[in-house]
Amino acid sequence: MYKQKPKNLVNLTKGEMANWLNSFDTVLTDCDGVLWHEGVAIDGVPAAISLLKTLGKEVYFVTNNGIKTRHDIWKTAMGAGFDVPETRIIAPISGIVEYLQARDFRKKVYIIGAEAVRSELTAVGIESFGPGPDVLAGKLSDYIAQHVNDTEAHEVGAVVVGFDEHFSFAKMLKACHYLGTNPDCLFMSTNFDHVHRYPAFSVPGTRALLVALETCVGRSALQFGKPNAEICAELIKSGRVVPARTLMIGDVCKVDILFGHNCGLQTLLVGTGFNSVYELNEILQNPSENERYIPDFFVPSLGDITKLV
Amino acid sequence: MYKQKPKNLVNLTKGEMANWLNSFDTVLTDCDGVLWHEGVAIDGVPAAISLLKTLGKEVYFVTNNGIKTRHDIWKTAMGAGFDVPETRIIAPISGIVEYLQARDFRKKVYIIGAEAVRSELTAVGIESFGPGPDVLAGKLSDYIAQHVNDTEAHEVGAVVVGFDEHFSFAKMLKACHYLGTNPDCLFMSTNFDHVHRYPAFSVPGTRALLVALETCVGRSALQFGKPNAEICAELIKSGRVVPARTLMIGDVCKVDILFGHNCGLQTLLVGTGFNSVYELNEILQNPSENERYIPDFFVPSLGDITKLV
Repeated sequence: MYKQKPKNLVNLTKGEMANWLNSFDTVLTDCDGVLWHEGVAIDGVPAAISLLKTLGKEVYFVTNNGIKTRHDIWKTAMGAGFDVPETRIIAPISGIVEYLQARDFRKKVYIIGAEAVRSELTAVGIESFGPGPDVLAGKLSDYIAQHVNDTEAHEVGAVVVGFDEHFSFAKMLKACHYLGTNPDCLFMSTNFDHVHRYPAFSVPGTRALLVALETCVGRSALQFGKPNAEICAELIKSGRVVPARTLMIGDVCKVDILFGHNCGLQTLLVGTGFNSVYELNEILQNPSENERYIPDFFVPSLGDITKLV
Repeated sequence: MYKQKPKNLVNLTKGEMANWLNSFDTVLTDCDGVLWHEGVAIDGVPAAISLLKTLGKEVYFVTNNGIKTRHDIWKTAMGAGFDVPETRIIAPISGIVEYLQARDFRKKVYIIGAEAVRSELTAVGIESFGPGPDVLAGKLSDYIAQHVNDTEAHEVGAVVVGFDEHFSFAKMLKACHYLGTNPDCLFMSTNFDHVHRYPAFSVPGTRALLVALETCVGRSALQFGKPNAEICAELIKSGRVVPARTLMIGDVCKVDILFGHNCGLQTLLVGTGFNSVYELNEILQNPSENERYIPDFFVPSLGDITKLV
């Protein structure tokens, strides 16, 4: 099944293209870098998604965005010209909320992450705290005396870690205490991005924050972002997604394509991600070692599909 | 050479004890948990160190303390009743300073760590910045625009990471930029402690901060604390420490004892560390997997030595 090199959709004949389109019923697509850039649709991509829907495909948007609620992401999608129901947005925060609800979670959640995590939890009646700055102003011992206590620790039943620009030693100290005091305290994370690379700088990713905590507490977090299959386990279990008849579209090999492989899906890499072509070429230098990162198909932009049909 | 279980010095005959004392000329000893607790000497230990010196042993204090200068540690030692020359204190910060001096380092050092790192660097004329709070008050994009730029990045030739209670996302962002922009930028760390455990709480260790940065930048720091042999490489190279005739004393198997093994030294674990007996028992449950953490000898307290001779 896995190829040494992805097939470029541009090189398929009309017949091959029609066969390919008939090979899946469901499409999972990443958002940023595939559908839009910073909320602005990539040329021709809204039309390509419409075409897929016209052809009868069920389309889901699967994002690793851990700082926005499902509703926020849905608004971005609508604003960029994509017509998608809110329930078709699959995001780490909603995955975490559903996981807690399924377990009838009644304790508090400590959040190292964005306000969006809190609002999603509040919406389903789960109490939480943590987002925003938490800074150690005076002495470490004073902070510990004031903020690290067992009463609070016993109330906390889950620590959720996502992207947090206010990540701090004080937050590490608290998470370390809640997770260390109570072995049953859940430890969950939104996504696994090491770093976000931009042309002029890089921004540390959730994974960097998470490994710091994992190192202190000596256990691993359950992860709700791609490439972990957990994020669509429910969709597969319920039969809404049949892996053998599903296509995963993404722009990052080590996240989206690996996720596709982890779930047993067919995969398509698009070249509109900031780094996708560079990353693909690196991976293809050692295909045998990188088998799970190699997509089945490649297309310069998802927008090209309309021209190829 | 490695034992399934350490020999307890208390069970040696006078003759065996004398033979053991004749088996080494040099002693490297950890400080906190072996010599003192929070600056107060452990009962009988100053007398034990005096005895070793009377017997002709050369004694060095080897600490992983990455928040104090060598001079501060020397003052603690003197205040606790240990008569040791300042040059016999081996500490990560002084190791880092010597490493930079040996390379005629002329750029700036960015410190994620304590003020002590800056004062040791200033003392030898190396410019540095970083200690203290660095908090992201407004928007992430504004912070990046103001604080993350290439001019500064080109001036930074080393990033030093130590224990830092002011560790923050803003600091990660800067370190990530300096190390990412310039592959020649040195990346160094004081010590490798995952976490500091106390009865009522735990405090994240330097290693937790370090892995966060290593995850972002995709490379490993050169480490100047135990168990890395780097910290006494110079002592061995110069012949002042002859591994086969040297005893390492410590209270943490995975740091001090492993360090002893890494340097080819004989090892003695003391039971005065907060966690040493518990840790040893855990390790002895799987001796074949934990060979490098098992000390050659054990003694409840270093102070006991005076009674055994």
